[in-house]
Amino acid sequence: MNQPRIGDVFGELLRDELAVRTGVGPRPLAGGRLPRPIVEIIERDDGLINGAPAAHYLAGPEDWPDHDHRALARVRGRILDVGVGGGRIALELQGRGHDVTGLDISPGALEVARRWGVRRLVRGTVDEHAGAGQRYDTFLLLGNNLGLIEGRERAPGFLAALARMAAPGAQVIAHGSNPYGTTDPVHVNYHERNRRRGRLGGQLRLRLRYRDAATEWFDYLVCSPEELTGLVGGTPWRLADVDDADRPYYLATLRLRADD
Amino acid sequence: MNQPRIGDVFGELLRDELAVRTGVGPRPLAGGRLPRPIVEIIERDDGLINGAPAAHYLAGPEDWPDHDHRALARVRGRILDVGVGGGRIALELQGRGHDVTGLDISPGALEVARRWGVRRLVRGTVDEHAGAGQRYDTFLLLGNNLGLIEGRERAPGFLAALARMAAPGAQVIAHGSNPYGTTDPVHVNYHERNRRRGRLGGQLRLRLRYRDAATEWFDYLVCSPEELTGLVGGTPWRLADVDDADRPYYLATLRLRADD
Repeated sequence: MNQPRIGDVFGELLRDELAVRTGVGPRPLAGGRLPRPIVEIIERDDGLINGAPAAHYLAGPEDWPDHDHRALARVRGRILDVGVGGGRIALELQGRGHDVTGLDISPGALEVARRWGVRRLVRGTVDEHAGAGQRYDTFLLLGNNLGLIEGRERAPGFLAALARMAAPGAQVIAHGSNPYGTTDPVHVNYHERNRRRGRLGGQLRLRLRYRDAATEWFDYLVCSPEELTGLVGGTPWRLADVDDADRPYYLATLRLRADD
Repeated sequence: MNQPRIGDVFGELLRDELAVRTGVGPRPLAGGRLPRPIVEIIERDDGLINGAPAAHYLAGPEDWPDHDHRALARVRGRILDVGVGGGRIALELQGRGHDVTGLDISPGALEVARRWGVRRLVRGTVDEHAGAGQRYDTFLLLGNNLGLIEGRERAPGFLAALARMAAPGAQVIAHGSNPYGTTDPVHVNYHERNRRRGRLGGQLRLRLRYRDAATEWFDYLVCSPEELTGLVGGTPWRLADVDDADRPYYLATLRLRADD
């Protein structure tokens, strides 16, 4: 058994999904002839594996979940779309006349977003971009990107980087998932295992795979709003609002404490 | 990183797909609330991984590819559905009044087929079932199940087991895929690697994964009709017809040489 190569999984996946959608460019075929559905593979460090069709990454607003629309109703000023991916959110905001910048670490994702029409794109982490001297009024972490705060170790640094880029009165609008509503033993046991190791229950250790490529293993957080309150404590931000109308999903809005 | 447990992957996948389809029984939920699509994960020994939505396993005749209908137009007499899976083919044949038996090694698949309404089901390999003294006029290997002949080593034994169960004038109707129409380097390199190791180019080494379960690694053959001719040579069967109207897929019909 060969190990997969380490590569830009997310970028390659998005590139192929765009090719399937537009009919332009090479795309995976069965037997060299029949298009295959593009499926993102997510491996967890307990051996769990899930496949999720990738179409939602390039879905138009008519196919979005309601909370995405409610998130967009909250934006104002200069916007940083953190983890812009294929650019579906940035593209819609841009079309509505907003000043929006997309940030991502994936070169392939940025190329797809650019080809799809997003104008302002930056490659890098929030820490790297914080050195660029830009200021934003709204930070968007949609598509479950609250997960980027990873856990207790990373959250303060991540939120500090956003604060360094924050204009007065800035807000973070983040989409999270509360993982604790399940009775599925595969998940309940995983949460317990994480806690025994000093991690948050939903502090997932994941890698993504697509075709012959894999990412390195990384942490990605799914947490309850209560856990989020704890993680935000001691940072320049406070949890100002939780919209959980689409449970288990929720929109968390953070505001700068300096504005209180 | 934990290794997945070895389990009845195909059976668990079908059981969940049936639960999603009928709304009865536990099924995978995101956050304990939202149904997830059931996706079969296929790992190849070069590190390639693919996800394929499982819905086709329980699809009704209106959603079948044309070659399945052409295969069913060819059946006669007592039928053995080899690798019956969830039972979509057997159920349709049964509804048309045919005498059909479904054979599978997966207990979970057989349970799904039984709950879906297939009446005659046997657990085992073709070798095991060949000892039971039953005789059949038609052996069906649909859903790409020509792959069960595995390669040069296994094909003679597999085809001999079918011959031991064959009534005079019996036929095998098998669905295969010709893998060599591709220019995708991931596949072309894999075919070359296989040949260097003395294997057929499309002699896939696979394991299936679903949630926390995996199969052992096994061989599954995708071959050209020309390669199939070679594999059938020296067995009690001859390749009587190839219907390749749905290239890269084809229907191979084998007949007993004794009938020539």
